[in-house]
Amino acid sequence: MASTTVPTICKDLDGDDRWLAVHKRFVQECKEKDPEVMFIGDCVLESLQFTDFWNSHFVPLHCLNFSIRNDRTQNVLWRLQNGELENVRPRVIVLHVGTNNIGDSAEEVAEGVLAIVATIRSKLAGVYVVIPTLLPRGHQPNPLRDKNAAVNGLLKERCAGMDKVQIVAVDGGLIQSDGTISHHDMFDYLNLTNVGSKKVFEPVWDLLHQILTENEKERDLTPSE
Amino acid sequence: MASTTVPTICKDLDGDDRWLAVHKRFVQECKEKDPEVMFIGDCVLESLQFTDFWNSHFVPLHCLNFSIRNDRTQNVLWRLQNGELENVRPRVIVLHVGTNNIGDSAEEVAEGVLAIVATIRSKLAGVYVVIPTLLPRGHQPNPLRDKNAAVNGLLKERCAGMDKVQIVAVDGGLIQSDGTISHHDMFDYLNLTNVGSKKVFEPVWDLLHQILTENEKERDLTPSE
Repeated sequence: MASTTVPTICKDLDGDDRWLAVHKRFVQECKEKDPEVMFIGDCVLESLQFTDFWNSHFVPLHCLNFSIRNDRTQNVLWRLQNGELENVRPRVIVLHVGTNNIGDSAEEVAEGVLAIVATIRSKLAGVYVVIPTLLPRGHQPNPLRDKNAAVNGLLKERCAGMDKVQIVAVDGGLIQSDGTISHHDMFDYLNLTNVGSKKVFEPVWDLLHQILTENEKERDLTPSE
Repeated sequence: MASTTVPTICKDLDGDDRWLAVHKRFVQECKEKDPEVMFIGDCVLESLQFTDFWNSHFVPLHCLNFSIRNDRTQNVLWRLQNGELENVRPRVIVLHVGTNNIGDSAEEVAEGVLAIVATIRSKLAGVYVVIPTLLPRGHQPNPLRDKNAAVNGLLKERCAGMDKVQIVAVDGGLIQSDGTISHHDMFDYLNLTNVGSKKVFEPVWDLLHQILTENEKERDLTPSE
């Protein structure tokens, strides 16, 4: 079994126990809050919550963001199997993880993501899972961009036909004609600026809006409510 | 010689060459921009630039922010000796680095910071160096908080009497009465939220404002200008 699919607690290599403290807070937030949408993943989603686009577009949808900077698929898997999906009934989960699985093959990373999807399904049967494609990274073309593209291709294949699982292609517009990524979009060539966030996450917001509105319409069909 | 004081390029362990790409961009920005203030350091200053307080208070002072997430003292030292202080004449440099020197002693971290101050002095003789104390970290009390406090104590001693070097105590108010740090101040118990940034960096802004205004007053004393 690939290590990407084995739930793994993040070791406290620093010595201040931050990862576990953040996880425990997420578990507590599940008891206190009632999110419609949950963002779960890594640095890309973590930094998203400090952007203007998050505040203007995602906050009004009642979103919780359970993302930790360096997480790999196995760490997210551990978190979700240890309380971060308890006591909540979100309608949608947005998942971005895998770009930090530096040492793993595209096949292994895709398996890791699919293991997370399976865990979400087992905990929250009816929830919609939205998977923005892994973003390109690095100022210049490099092997990690190629691997992330390969992961995206594999996920697209394997999620095709799955009920309530939607891959959203979000990397359009980041890579410039000369192959570089601008720091105006990604300040460190990994995480998004305000400008980049709007560019990348607008299609995700569109889909969320559509999913949440469709549910409203279904409700409207029941006049007795 | 402690490794903290030896200029060290950050190895491209990921495989996408991001660190060097960011450094090269900083060197380029020195040629294009004319900052009054430069922020140089690690994750704490990197995340600061995405806060409301940065936009409302530091941007109007004409600040450049040359901070990279995981940098240790030796990495900042390398950057400053390889172009990030060329072609610029800032009046003040704000330096926060050392919290990522996990494996080094407080004495070694302090030496690293002092080596950076010496490099700044050798490149920009008249510049004011402002050093906010290393922030506490971790949700609960832990050895890294103690070490950062020890670094702060050493720096306070050794910088006493240095011309145009000012340590600013900035950790007041982060540690609550039960010893914990709130995620409202530090979302990951290392980096600051909007709320935490205001709390921590207001004294830094006050000092910058004072330094920049004093210079203005000195100018005003020269009627021939």
